[in-house]
Amino acid sequence: MAVGEERSPDNGRPCLVRFEPSGLSVTVPAGTLLGDALAQAGLSVPLPCGGQGRCGRCVVQVREGPVRRRSALRLSEADIAAGWALACQTLVSGDLTVWIPPAEERVLRAEAGDRAEKSAPEVVLCEEAGPPWVAAYPLAVEPPSMSDNTPDLERVQRELARQHGLREVRPTLPALSKLPSVLRDGDWKVAAVVERGDWTTPAGPSRLLDVRPTHTDQRVFGLAIDIGTTTVCVYLGDLSTGALVAHASAFNGQIERGEDVISRIIYARQPERAQELKERVVGTINALIDSMVEREGLSPDQIVCATVAGNTTMTHLFLGLEPHYIRLEPYIPAAGRFPPVPAGQLGLHMHPEGLVDCLPAVGAYVGGDITAGVLRSGMHEQEAVTLFIDVGTNGEMVLGNADWLIACACSAGPAFEGAGAVSGMPAVPGAVEQVWIDPRTLEPTWTTIGGEPPLGICGSGMISLLGEMLVTGVIDKSGRLAADGRSPRIRVSEEGPEYVVAWAEATARGRDIVLTETDIQNLLRAKAAIYAGATVLCESVGLAITDVERVLIGGGFGKHIDVEKAILIGLLPDMPWERFTYLGNTSIQGAYLALTCQEARARVDELAAKMTYLELSADNRFMEAFTSALFIPHTDESLFPSVQESLARARGSEPGPGARSEGSSEGGSGD
Amino acid sequence: MAVGEERSPDNGRPCLVRFEPSGLSVTVPAGTLLGDALAQAGLSVPLPCGGQGRCGRCVVQVREGPVRRRSALRLSEADIAAGWALACQTLVSGDLTVWIPPAEERVLRAEAGDRAEKSAPEVVLCEEAGPPWVAAYPLAVEPPSMSDNTPDLERVQRELARQHGLREVRPTLPALSKLPSVLRDGDWKVAAVVERGDWTTPAGPSRLLDVRPTHTDQRVFGLAIDIGTTTVCVYLGDLSTGALVAHASAFNGQIERGEDVISRIIYARQPERAQELKERVVGTINALIDSMVEREGLSPDQIVCATVAGNTTMTHLFLGLEPHYIRLEPYIPAAGRFPPVPAGQLGLHMHPEGLVDCLPAVGAYVGGDITAGVLRSGMHEQEAVTLFIDVGTNGEMVLGNADWLIACACSAGPAFEGAGAVSGMPAVPGAVEQVWIDPRTLEPTWTTIGGEPPLGICGSGMISLLGEMLVTGVIDKSGRLAADGRSPRIRVSEEGPEYVVAWAEATARGRDIVLTETDIQNLLRAKAAIYAGATVLCESVGLAITDVERVLIGGGFGKHIDVEKAILIGLLPDMPWERFTYLGNTSIQGAYLALTCQEARARVDELAAKMTYLELSADNRFMEAFTSALFIPHTDESLFPSVQESLARARGSEPGPGARSEGSSEGGSGD
Repeated sequence: MAVGEERSPDNGRPCLVRFEPSGLSVTVPAGTLLGDALAQAGLSVPLPCGGQGRCGRCVVQVREGPVRRRSALRLSEADIAAGWALACQTLVSGDLTVWIPPAEERVLRAEAGDRAEKSAPEVVLCEEAGPPWVAAYPLAVEPPSMSDNTPDLERVQRELARQHGLREVRPTLPALSKLPSVLRDGDWKVAAVVERGDWTTPAGPSRLLDVRPTHTDQRVFGLAIDIGTTTVCVYLGDLSTGALVAHASAFNGQIERGEDVISRIIYARQPERAQELKERVVGTINALIDSMVEREGLSPDQIVCATVAGNTTMTHLFLGLEPHYIRLEPYIPAAGRFPPVPAGQLGLHMHPEGLVDCLPAVGAYVGGDITAGVLRSGMHEQEAVTLFIDVGTNGEMVLGNADWLIACACSAGPAFEGAGAVSGMPAVPGAVEQVWIDPRTLEPTWTTIGGEPPLGICGSGMISLLGEMLVTGVIDKSGRLAADGRSPRIRVSEEGPEYVVAWAEATARGRDIVLTETDIQNLLRAKAAIYAGATVLCESVGLAITDVERVLIGGGFGKHIDVEKAILIGLLPDMPWERFTYLGNTSIQGAYLALTCQEARARVDELAAKMTYLELSADNRFMEAFTSALFIPHTDESLFPSVQESLARARGSEPGPGARSEGSSEGGSGD
Repeated sequence: MAVGEERSPDNGRPCLVRFEPSGLSVTVPAGTLLGDALAQAGLSVPLPCGGQGRCGRCVVQVREGPVRRRSALRLSEADIAAGWALACQTLVSGDLTVWIPPAEERVLRAEAGDRAEKSAPEVVLCEEAGPPWVAAYPLAVEPPSMSDNTPDLERVQRELARQHGLREVRPTLPALSKLPSVLRDGDWKVAAVVERGDWTTPAGPSRLLDVRPTHTDQRVFGLAIDIGTTTVCVYLGDLSTGALVAHASAFNGQIERGEDVISRIIYARQPERAQELKERVVGTINALIDSMVEREGLSPDQIVCATVAGNTTMTHLFLGLEPHYIRLEPYIPAAGRFPPVPAGQLGLHMHPEGLVDCLPAVGAYVGGDITAGVLRSGMHEQEAVTLFIDVGTNGEMVLGNADWLIACACSAGPAFEGAGAVSGMPAVPGAVEQVWIDPRTLEPTWTTIGGEPPLGICGSGMISLLGEMLVTGVIDKSGRLAADGRSPRIRVSEEGPEYVVAWAEATARGRDIVLTETDIQNLLRAKAAIYAGATVLCESVGLAITDVERVLIGGGFGKHIDVEKAILIGLLPDMPWERFTYLGNTSIQGAYLALTCQEARARVDELAAKMTYLELSADNRFMEAFTSALFIPHTDESLFPSVQESLARARGSEPGPGARSEGSSEGGSGD
């Protein structure tokens, strides 16, 4: 099963290639593309990207014999070591045994390659988390007598100090109300649910949240809640172990009242509408809690604390704070640090006395989702200069390291969340999430989330599509569609010029799925805003963007982002791929860290206080950088050498100097 | 106008007595009773007590000339210096000018003597009270700009620290919600209502309760609330000055559900009934608040904190705590120290975020009303061994000084609050509060609260009546009515033997007002319980009751108590009158002190912690002492020498050795 890699093959020498499981074999000269050998044997694998090594759908396993790889895009080192290879990018270099996996397995493997982060841990935990904020402490209490008539509360407080070292624990009124009967019904054996006050700043007293008979389920849980403008995500964690017990997500119920924060702030101008928005997001969260609580067989009272990460506007609307002045110059939120609030005051379906802790915001457009994300990223603890980008309806980014942090936000608009475009949709089942275009026929192949008939295109589909359109010449650098009549898919409708991704009959709604030139312009503005933000952020501290040592990408969107295509369209800076790391939803992960680790929670306040907020709307450099970035990939092509190379390869020319080593184009296709 | 006091008069010498304003005059021998001289001149003053110097209704002013006083009961030193004298207790010793005031003025003067505490200050303040718990701090805030985009909250926090030295002030959610618009509407000039967290133990963070535009009324107020089993009293104080602004009181709305704490605890066994009791007392308090707020033209939001003093059961019912185990051996309350609770949680008509602080209880029957009372009494700071008695439906008492404190409670029953007796009623207008019985005719004279036609007899009336009945022989030492046919007022009805205080036609309800032998037995049990409690309390620390250097009397009841009569019936120990001090409603006064002075509030916790609780129901000595005290004044008459003397005087005999010097009986009457 050993597979040799031959760097200098003897081209032309006849090689026997045997295919499994069919048992068919062919003899081809060394240097033949594996895809061509397959075709010679009467076999085929799909090539949605036209044999350009972009889609990974032609993956096969070379089980014996030497090959030469042009490109190993989408394959991990472990995959390569195990002989996995792209038929369209691999040359026969000797006698081979090649296994062709079933179609389903090829799709799964390609998708795993696309989104390696899907199998990444959902949560990251502190290595040495201290005691949890809230825990259920078992207590054996001495029953009172005529010679010891200490009241119930003082009796419990005495034992909390004696048995658990917990002093000065103040009861909530509901806990105190039920204390006498729970003590006696439980025969003086109870569990005291205590919230340690020292985690809030300024520190409040420790609180006795609840008392429970010992025969009930003693576990206590916490929630990490990510309130995104578009999506709300809730994680349920066991506070004693930090283990993630359940998670769920859904659209933010506020979407019907505006797709971005600005439209929601405007909607919330009347108090009853602000109240409506509050109720909508609380309703969304409650539905998620309810489903988890039911699935896990818990009581809502077992959920005793919550940590919330949201952008500044989402946090304001959730807490019922006036968001109005976030929108108006000089863009002032009601607060950056939010007081912890008992859940009962907010109407969350959890223990009403449990505190809800919203992570701090840095500015009007850099909120708790970003401070949570930085916490999760760990960039605030490392030497390397890191750029953290949270791609969402707003593009927020933070640059820095252990010594300094600077943050900014740019309004990317909802294009990357699939909103605002004719066929745009959020990243839910039925959304086209990956596209390949055959460079000769300009026919697209796509995959959808969940493999369902396509409904529309989500943000990651937009990036993929835009990159393919550029590589195949469907659009030019300014985003204009080619009008050369090469394909019926490029047409002019009432909406103007557009490219048809899926004809009506192939879709779930019986309507053509298209990307219009207007949509493309929106996407260009969005990617330009993010790239410009990153550039100006770097410039503001005297760095070039290429000085950045690591780029961390977060956000619900980032979970599906295709770095190759994102660089291709100039959304992400052109840097070696190893500098990029997908982190997935950094906001919820940071909230979960803060929920389960007091050290981490304290660090969020520290890093928020340390972070400088750069207001881009006051910065002329931003407008300049933005304008320059409105081309694909950029007005200044020298900033994107790998893209130049890719485009040159796609046009069949030789790569220029400084071309990257992963592959060398020899043109043609594997069909 | 100088009045001489002649100690050794030349009896028999003729003296000219001139009466003003009539101008009439008579000549009488020296040694003649002024009352007799009045009668000789054809004038009269009323003598409801039969000329025994008990009622003070015969008061006149000797404007010139010497007199000899037998007794100066009911007159203050200032009164005596000004020549005021009782006609029935004053002997002519030379030529006199005597002014006879109009009847109304005599009544007023006598009542003022009865209840000197009525003109005592309603509240006592700390001499050096620190800053108030809650204050409105004026703030001029720098408006934000693009170069200073600090959020609103942090901006206000910065100014609170800069301008007022207040650090780490955490906002309540409602205050934060309105902050942006109040800042902008008020042109960045506001008042920040801040509650300093350092007064709660364990100390919580300071809280921003409210923000207000500067053009509104900036005063903030606090409430002292005394929740008595029978009466609820509320004081409204200006927190910045400590000044008492208004006060109001009313019956506790719970009375309909039981007259004493035990019956209310039993009623509260079902949760919905406990809730009903809670709502009833909150309703009572709210009605009082509403009336004060309306009268003073305030907004309820200006009331920002409250201090509550109530017995342990009242506090439990008010907070919604289970009172059940207070009633059952070993008599355990849910708590002794209560957490401060936001008013909104309790439904009080004040700022919903303002904290309601219930003063600590020492045991099941020694509550916050007593710790407040001790605070007010100051006994915990003095050398002298003091006995503090709070007479109410429960008789609570505390013995001690600056070094030690011991407390107990005895169930006196509602007799001294006018409840449970055939003609009993609370101390409200129409209640008979003072009675005198003519020793010859056994005809009573009475006064009622407010001077209205009598409705019934309140607790102080009961004490007065009982004392008169004893002195005049209407009852014997065991409380049995004389059946010698001396008066039609002593009769036997369906209720058994009884004395008719007022015939139906003289009453407001057209029904005879009576005191039955059964009522008398209830009163005896009540007074015996209190006296026995005091005795056992003293014994428990190795003292005789006469070792007590001061006796302080508190309670709504104590406000009207007549020390002379209370000693006469054996309710209070027989000691020189100067050792007794009326303090009025010590519970509300202590609560007001704690409300307006942080030092005082801290001392309540300290003294509560220092206080030993003696549970009398576990003490055999108490039952013995109680049984001994079921006579009037006591089985052991030697404990009450002054009573022996009074009774002897009433019977016309010479005083025995050791008789008190205030007066010497010469028998007879002034009629």
